[in-house]
Amino acid sequence: MSEHHTLSAKLDYQFSDADLLKTALTHRSAADKHNERLEFLGDSLLGYLIADRLFRQFPDAREGQLTRLRASLVKGETLADIARDLNLGHFLILGSGELKSGGWRRDSILADTLEAVIGAVYLDGGLNACEDLIDKLYQTRLKGLSLSHIDKDPKTRLQEYLQAKKLQLPQYKITAITGDDHNQIFNVSCRIAELPKAVQGEGRSRRHAEQAAAKRVLKLLQTK
Amino acid sequence: MSEHHTLSAKLDYQFSDADLLKTALTHRSAADKHNERLEFLGDSLLGYLIADRLFRQFPDAREGQLTRLRASLVKGETLADIARDLNLGHFLILGSGELKSGGWRRDSILADTLEAVIGAVYLDGGLNACEDLIDKLYQTRLKGLSLSHIDKDPKTRLQEYLQAKKLQLPQYKITAITGDDHNQIFNVSCRIAELPKAVQGEGRSRRHAEQAAAKRVLKLLQTK
Repeated sequence: MSEHHTLSAKLDYQFSDADLLKTALTHRSAADKHNERLEFLGDSLLGYLIADRLFRQFPDAREGQLTRLRASLVKGETLADIARDLNLGHFLILGSGELKSGGWRRDSILADTLEAVIGAVYLDGGLNACEDLIDKLYQTRLKGLSLSHIDKDPKTRLQEYLQAKKLQLPQYKITAITGDDHNQIFNVSCRIAELPKAVQGEGRSRRHAEQAAAKRVLKLLQTK
Repeated sequence: MSEHHTLSAKLDYQFSDADLLKTALTHRSAADKHNERLEFLGDSLLGYLIADRLFRQFPDAREGQLTRLRASLVKGETLADIARDLNLGHFLILGSGELKSGGWRRDSILADTLEAVIGAVYLDGGLNACEDLIDKLYQTRLKGLSLSHIDKDPKTRLQEYLQAKKLQLPQYKITAITGDDHNQIFNVSCRIAELPKAVQGEGRSRRHAEQAAAKRVLKLLQTK
């Protein structure tokens, strides 16, 4: 366990209970006492603390903007990046199967482990220690954040447009799925009260098809 | 605002900043200064505090069980029930449209407002006040909770079965949607590595069809 000193230094936190850190680093493939419960706890703490920081940092942001900013900060990809900065993959305790298949560099495992570490710091040092950790891990990312950075996708823009006008939200419906299992094309219709007919969109996933439909609806609204 | 005394009594919390409570009770249909930002904050606090309580109350629960318990406690229906206990609908500030259409008894509006009130107590009185509130609101519901109460649906049971065996998770795919707009039937296939062929399920929503498919897969696995 002595090499955990390096990790403690990176986290800027010294565990009273070294077993707790060990559990946080243990993937379910390696032992019965693994990190999934801690991950559950850490995930909820991260959600709360990031929400709290964003709420204060952006007093003029709307709820939808705060939600999107938070999503960008707590998504697996971001967590995996932070985990890599901490060299967390080096400390993972994995079962032999996961070890062979390179689990230590997989985004999902790195992200889950980081959440477990956050949960472990909370149990070991309390909420204040956990807040210090989050603020340290997210310092640069929070500083660099601005509302203009949020890329709004067409569905979001359409929703915000309708909400601002206090109109009903759009209804999306899959109208057809064609192609074979690995090459499906989705057709989706988007209906809003302002337009007489549903508008169609097509894409390689339901989400893409919905975005395509929303984009067309926005165009139609602009030319109205 | 004097009638808010009744609400304060029910919440067992006296606001220093009465405006904060007013904002928490204001639906976006009524004013520009509405409760959506507070709802964002309250939602994250609720998620964290309930996760914390469940983690401690159920030291032997697996992550999946904690997640399901939490979902049952923070879902809109539960929040709306709690809001009704508080008679929150009586204090809502709604726009005329929402007022006419009975917005004060709609689950979603009640649930969102309760989250906003939680966020407002947090800003007004700090985390301790917010913890006291959550513990008060959830006292009976947390006490009455047990692991055996979690109804596991087929998809969940299938996932847990595969995870326990360290196998890949099932893949669900929509294979057909038939019927007209208001009467659609979904066909979904569920594929797992252990079975040679994908198994079909049918239902009135994608979710129902997936559950039906998972149920058949479980049966096939039991008779293997």
